[in-house]
Amino acid sequence: MLAIGQQARQAARAMLRATGAQKADALLAMAQLLAEQRNDLQITNKIDLDAGRTRNLEPALLDRLTLSDRTIDLMIEGLRQIAAMPDPIGSLTAATVRPNGMQVGQMRVPLGVIGIIYESRPNVTIDAAALCLKSGNAAVLRGGSEAIHSNLALGNIVQQGLAAAGLPANAIQVIDTPDRAAVGHLITMTEHIDVIIPRGGKSLIKRLAAEARVPMIKHLDGNCHVYIDDHADLEQAATIAFNAKTYRYGVCGAMETLLVHTAVAKAVLPELAHRLITHGVELRGCERVQKIIPQALAATDEDWGTEYLGPILAIKVVDSIDDAIAHIERWGSSHTDAIVTQHIASAQQFQREVDSSSVLVNLPTCFADGFEYGLGAEIGISTNRLHARGPVGLEGLTTLKWVLHGNGQTRG
Amino acid sequence: MLAIGQQARQAARAMLRATGAQKADALLAMAQLLAEQRNDLQITNKIDLDAGRTRNLEPALLDRLTLSDRTIDLMIEGLRQIAAMPDPIGSLTAATVRPNGMQVGQMRVPLGVIGIIYESRPNVTIDAAALCLKSGNAAVLRGGSEAIHSNLALGNIVQQGLAAAGLPANAIQVIDTPDRAAVGHLITMTEHIDVIIPRGGKSLIKRLAAEARVPMIKHLDGNCHVYIDDHADLEQAATIAFNAKTYRYGVCGAMETLLVHTAVAKAVLPELAHRLITHGVELRGCERVQKIIPQALAATDEDWGTEYLGPILAIKVVDSIDDAIAHIERWGSSHTDAIVTQHIASAQQFQREVDSSSVLVNLPTCFADGFEYGLGAEIGISTNRLHARGPVGLEGLTTLKWVLHGNGQTRG
Repeated sequence: MLAIGQQARQAARAMLRATGAQKADALLAMAQLLAEQRNDLQITNKIDLDAGRTRNLEPALLDRLTLSDRTIDLMIEGLRQIAAMPDPIGSLTAATVRPNGMQVGQMRVPLGVIGIIYESRPNVTIDAAALCLKSGNAAVLRGGSEAIHSNLALGNIVQQGLAAAGLPANAIQVIDTPDRAAVGHLITMTEHIDVIIPRGGKSLIKRLAAEARVPMIKHLDGNCHVYIDDHADLEQAATIAFNAKTYRYGVCGAMETLLVHTAVAKAVLPELAHRLITHGVELRGCERVQKIIPQALAATDEDWGTEYLGPILAIKVVDSIDDAIAHIERWGSSHTDAIVTQHIASAQQFQREVDSSSVLVNLPTCFADGFEYGLGAEIGISTNRLHARGPVGLEGLTTLKWVLHGNGQTRG
Repeated sequence: MLAIGQQARQAARAMLRATGAQKADALLAMAQLLAEQRNDLQITNKIDLDAGRTRNLEPALLDRLTLSDRTIDLMIEGLRQIAAMPDPIGSLTAATVRPNGMQVGQMRVPLGVIGIIYESRPNVTIDAAALCLKSGNAAVLRGGSEAIHSNLALGNIVQQGLAAAGLPANAIQVIDTPDRAAVGHLITMTEHIDVIIPRGGKSLIKRLAAEARVPMIKHLDGNCHVYIDDHADLEQAATIAFNAKTYRYGVCGAMETLLVHTAVAKAVLPELAHRLITHGVELRGCERVQKIIPQALAATDEDWGTEYLGPILAIKVVDSIDDAIAHIERWGSSHTDAIVTQHIASAQQFQREVDSSSVLVNLPTCFADGFEYGLGAEIGISTNRLHARGPVGLEGLTTLKWVLHGNGQTRG
């Protein structure tokens, strides 16, 4: 692992000289290689799938492990899209001129070496490699042990693509041992790894966060709220709440608790509840909700704190926007929260005071996604306060250094 | 400490509602209180000074511990300057409009709770409090035990100023125990402290970094380089190098190693060496330097890696800009490095490839400072890669959250 770290650091330094054209060439070469080696890849993937079946992996896991034609097509398409995006590296901010005439600006530069730890989907190998490469970083990738043959084959294609463009093959390395101790090294090698981005379930991320010495870009929970204000357009509110819950139950931006102002609860809840129940969503509510929706089960404190990621919704009636904000402050996870209102002051108060990485007005929380925000790509969502907050695209994989120009000015 | 952390978190939430006017009022009230309580402050400060003399503190330490009239005037002036600066909080970036009509932008928000750990200067209590307050954060301040009476008296003034402006007094807390275990708690309370900013010597910061669980904004070393290119204006080069070394030996931006292209070494070094030696600077050089400057001692690898913070300079002759960059990569500390050149391609290569938090062209490294960069204030300098990099002003104490506006758009 130390050798991998050192090679990554060395490659990261060489990557500072990579041009945008080289990076695009490497990505397009990878796309080409994926297309050419499709059959070989699928034969290799079968080794992982057979081993998975022998180990009685769940069908959903086996499905995520499969490099189907469709998955490979999506990887190829993703590589081409990222190749076509503008190169973020080397761009300059506006510069200011100081009284002594020196110009002060900032240049966008790579973070350095990124460690990515992910679970069973082997296509993450390509997605993560592409984003790290485009942003000028070196990366060390560590996928799930059940996908190791597939990941190594994909890593091989990535390294061929890098070499074809004259870039250091070690800029992207896939860890080739299933040994779990490797992860322990990866997340503590502060000298060689600059940031860890975990992609996986909450238990994985929690475990990593407890042991990591390298900073992590991560989120644990997506306990997202929609608050229907007393000044809401109620038809719009019902549309937003229904979409926020039902677009996809499993995404981190799915609404888990609906807060409704008492003044509009009776007007908006019955029909919305009917739609949700018909759609198969179980409702759990506070006492006031249960009076309006007889089918709702009693919600407990545990419900307010739970990210269901499934067809369950907690509902609470609140007396004011302040109570709604206080509830989100108490139970939320700083991920994504939304208000539905036509009242400017309510929208402003909610956006200012709700301390989440995304705060939405008159939109469902399920929009929390880098592509939807126009970032062109997404490596994950962060609820960190330092560095990237919210959906993380290419820019989140970069930083700014100061660049100054003078002509011999001196200090003091 | 847990109670302090909880109070800080609660205050941070209340601070989300603070207006710019309230924050300015609080800062001006503190300035007023400092002026009014000047005598009392100096009487309290004498307790620390007497204790320090009894403990035989060095004169330089006692000097830094003293709240002289001049120090108090500077604190008052600093508070007024920060009060007059624009409020960074709540400002919005340009927003983009997505194809479905929703607007995607970002709002500047406080980091949350900042822990500041500093050594003997009690005026840091005021400076740090002012910057944290202006940026909408809560802060927990922990100064040196030798200044505890002074720090608590200043903390009292800060809390009076907060209360006078209707802000929570707990937004700024000074830890009132000299117990060293308090620091250990502060740097591991990830639930209540969002970032630690240490201000002090390298040994303090190294110790904190080894034990911290809370992210830190910090730099360890300032081993700064000036490289004189073969295309340099040699008179300008000598001026820059002399200033970079002699402006102040003790600042982290002071030049510690001078790199000179072999083609101009004989032309620039003799006169520059004479000026430096006359000024009291000891020179240490590689063999080629020693041939040009007979007075130079032999430099060892240890010299290339040392931040002298004193009247010593290491000098090395290099064969190319690539060698200069490689030397900085090997021995530098990612702080501040400069090139002197009239050649555009050399300047561009140096700025792109030198991986430091500040890269200067035709300027001495001693400009590394938030005030010089026009930030209006500085809480410290960071060589981190995540979040703030380089001098950290008010903006470095904030982050951006996503704010989206729609009118009922749905996903999927």
